[in-house]
Amino acid sequence: MTTTENARRNGVDTAALFATIDAVAANREIAEFRFRATNTWISGTHNRSSIHGFHGAGQELTHGREHTYDSDHPAILTGGDQGPTGPEFLLHALAACLTSGIANIAAARGVTLTEVSSTVEGDIDLLGILGLDEGVRNGYSRIAISFRLRGDDADALRDVVERSRARSAVLDVLTNGVPVHIDVDAG
Amino acid sequence: MTTTENARRNGVDTAALFATIDAVAANREIAEFRFRATNTWISGTHNRSSIHGFHGAGQELTHGREHTYDSDHPAILTGGDQGPTGPEFLLHALAACLTSGIANIAAARGVTLTEVSSTVEGDIDLLGILGLDEGVRNGYSRIAISFRLRGDDADALRDVVERSRARSAVLDVLTNGVPVHIDVDAG
Repeated sequence: MTTTENARRNGVDTAALFATIDAVAANREIAEFRFRATNTWISGTHNRSSIHGFHGAGQELTHGREHTYDSDHPAILTGGDQGPTGPEFLLHALAACLTSGIANIAAARGVTLTEVSSTVEGDIDLLGILGLDEGVRNGYSRIAISFRLRGDDADALRDVVERSRARSAVLDVLTNGVPVHIDVDAG
Repeated sequence: MTTTENARRNGVDTAALFATIDAVAANREIAEFRFRATNTWISGTHNRSSIHGFHGAGQELTHGREHTYDSDHPAILTGGDQGPTGPEFLLHALAACLTSGIANIAAARGVTLTEVSSTVEGDIDLLGILGLDEGVRNGYSRIAISFRLRGDDADALRDVVERSRARSAVLDVLTNGVPVHIDVDAG
């Protein structure tokens, strides 16, 4: 790794990346992060989330600006189509997480990328959420993501994707599940 | 339910909602949907997804317009902070899915809403994705979502949230997991 420690490759500051890993290894409690979104119902199935602050490295932090995202059901599902559905944002979350990982891992290994693109699709049978068939699950039955990578040799690129798969936070949650606690203040 | 079938409540067209459920019950194969996102790497951990087309009700459909979402790592994780991380979008996906469900279910039951807001937080120990502790998972160890609802009586509001929880596509995937297939074209 010494040959790449001072390089910027694929737009990744690899020196900063390795320094961050070293800093966390020396002070493991700074690895505890808490990410956050707030959501407000607008009308019908239309609602809006804000993502701004998060906790990490022992402190409260913020993104450079607040990001807001509208979600809704499409017209064919009797919504106002003011944005994608939650399940569609979940597909974006997966592609984004794997792609960020690919860029970091490639840079750390000295692998040059010229293109990373992907299409992610999720199959869902709405008989579940519509309550029409108790044998059908509510969520996706299957998600498939197809990557196209160009850059260094194909074996190196495939190894980078495999390592990103093995280290993806979103893929872990989607494939292995996570406990979700729901609290309600109903007045 | 007959008293609400012609009403628009909470911004939901309940007559259209019931008609849609009846149409699907009579023609179950139209319930098969395939949602989709495409993602393109930009530089470093910065990448951008597009959500536009989807398959449903036996046809190829599109949202009214294409939606694009940037994702990146924050500066403290050596990214360019051009957008939230994938795991943060996942929190938004959960809040959006549950909130759309709450609005639909409340309308179907004749329950009036005046406010639905939520905060969703996910705890993640980065020792996992940084490869510093094989005993730490890559993804969230726990997600917690707190809802505040106002409108009709508290018991009715709590029952609506419980029903949305029981019928949420995103909650199902997050708590039960889903098979994810990854295909790579590396040139």
